[in-house]
Amino acid sequence: MLCRKCKTKAVINLPQHNRAFCSPCFTDFLHTQVIRGIKAQNMFTKNERILVAVSGGKDSLTLWQILLHLGYRVDALYVDLGIGSYSEKSREKVNRFTHDVASRYESKLHIHTVEEEEGAGIKDLANLLHRPTCSTCGTMKRYQFNRVAVQNDYDVMATGHNLDDEASRLLGNVLRWQTEYLDKQTPHLPASVEGFARKVKPLYRLTEREIATYAVINKIDYQVEECPMAKGSKMLLYKEMLNRLETESPGTKQRFYWGFLEKQATARQQTTEIVDQDRECLHPCATCGQPTSSEICSYCKMMAKAKTRV
Amino acid sequence: MLCRKCKTKAVINLPQHNRAFCSPCFTDFLHTQVIRGIKAQNMFTKNERILVAVSGGKDSLTLWQILLHLGYRVDALYVDLGIGSYSEKSREKVNRFTHDVASRYESKLHIHTVEEEEGAGIKDLANLLHRPTCSTCGTMKRYQFNRVAVQNDYDVMATGHNLDDEASRLLGNVLRWQTEYLDKQTPHLPASVEGFARKVKPLYRLTEREIATYAVINKIDYQVEECPMAKGSKMLLYKEMLNRLETESPGTKQRFYWGFLEKQATARQQTTEIVDQDRECLHPCATCGQPTSSEICSYCKMMAKAKTRV
Repeated sequence: MLCRKCKTKAVINLPQHNRAFCSPCFTDFLHTQVIRGIKAQNMFTKNERILVAVSGGKDSLTLWQILLHLGYRVDALYVDLGIGSYSEKSREKVNRFTHDVASRYESKLHIHTVEEEEGAGIKDLANLLHRPTCSTCGTMKRYQFNRVAVQNDYDVMATGHNLDDEASRLLGNVLRWQTEYLDKQTPHLPASVEGFARKVKPLYRLTEREIATYAVINKIDYQVEECPMAKGSKMLLYKEMLNRLETESPGTKQRFYWGFLEKQATARQQTTEIVDQDRECLHPCATCGQPTSSEICSYCKMMAKAKTRV
Repeated sequence: MLCRKCKTKAVINLPQHNRAFCSPCFTDFLHTQVIRGIKAQNMFTKNERILVAVSGGKDSLTLWQILLHLGYRVDALYVDLGIGSYSEKSREKVNRFTHDVASRYESKLHIHTVEEEEGAGIKDLANLLHRPTCSTCGTMKRYQFNRVAVQNDYDVMATGHNLDDEASRLLGNVLRWQTEYLDKQTPHLPASVEGFARKVKPLYRLTEREIATYAVINKIDYQVEECPMAKGSKMLLYKEMLNRLETESPGTKQRFYWGFLEKQATARQQTTEIVDQDRECLHPCATCGQPTSSEICSYCKMMAKAKTRV
């Protein structure tokens, strides 16, 4: 198997693109895919300040590295959820990447430690609230990422969601025809109202396998373990299914998610609509000021409830 | 496990409905589901003449039996595709059902034998045409069912497609976002133009498992083998996946397909649209007169091509 570009020995075969690449050409290919995604979705410019949400896993560290390499102005935020040794190890990986790579670009790391700031780790909070850990964690991360981005005047917040993440989430939303979620499942969510950061997903064109290969080739030292709380989740089941279909028909995930995006774009002037809908139903939370559709936002409700139960 | 209705011992548990039933109550339950589907989709009345497409399998024979039992005016059509012992056995099952059950209701069986009428079985035709057998078979069945229905003045043509068939077809259409197929995936396709029969799927609310149980309880002697040509098909893979999801979350198939139908109905005055679109682009085939969007319909093209290659 030879590299499509330079004809040396290839290290990865991409049946969905009908191509194979050697390490340097593969790295170039992924960079091009990211640039193409940023442009196609009009995500951000070189003058804007970007905050990347990092977990210590392959996707978010790869995103940080690629954006730095491409010359974007980017810092990162790590939210330490306090999930025992998993969080400790993840934090170590993030710190190491910051020291070894990001510091060379004068890129900064923000850290928010849930146990210190909220008084308990995510598992204890979930137990107090009688809520599943993953949904408690979702509320926490969405809230803190947005807060840090807005308070520090970042223009845009970027997450490491990849094609596998988006395709499996789309499958879940389609199986239940969750129209509201389907409407908002886009790699670029505009900052519709004061208090919301713009949110983008620059890796939406890359598969998990491509990102893992990139991380290995480019010596990114990442947390290999999955979060222990995610075991048995629906998302993992959907991913497994899509991987099975991908093996039978290379390109399935891409056709499914990109096809959805095209359909969405054709169907309407999407950005305008999301902005209009949000402006109609969102206003500042009475407690913290972040936009919410209720009087008190879900994070503040969650934390108030947790306090009454301590 | 006790029957939800009469509290005797249950024979089947339906987690998606959160109910269990004994044999007679289960039979009643399925009849009610079919009646509900016929009404909800405005399929046909007791005065209309129905032609059921039968293959000898559990779905189509069960459909024939239920419609007879409910007092509808129904005959059947069997298309013998000439697939060796599989077709022979299927034909036997259909003949036996006609003799043992249908004849008591004075319900008639039409038979179309591909080998006699078209000069070769479906496998040979597919080979001659260099086309996959399943798509050749699809064209053949759609054409012959419609022809027999229209020539014999049936008001409507019914097929035994069940919830598993429709959900897996929907999954395939959604994975590729095939808008045109999605638009027409409904349990009631109107007779949009002269020469097309109305097409309905009265079993769309029933799972494969429910129909198989009904067939066993009600001693319907059916062809158990899958068509040997369907092995390894995408549809079987999709069904397997949906079954896996159904085990994890009972009701997945129902939510997926019924949710799609609701969304479709809300989105538009569907029937009118299909009728309008068809009237705009369909006209009689220059060879046989059945409606087509080309000059010659796909069946006549197929047969003309086969003849040049004999």
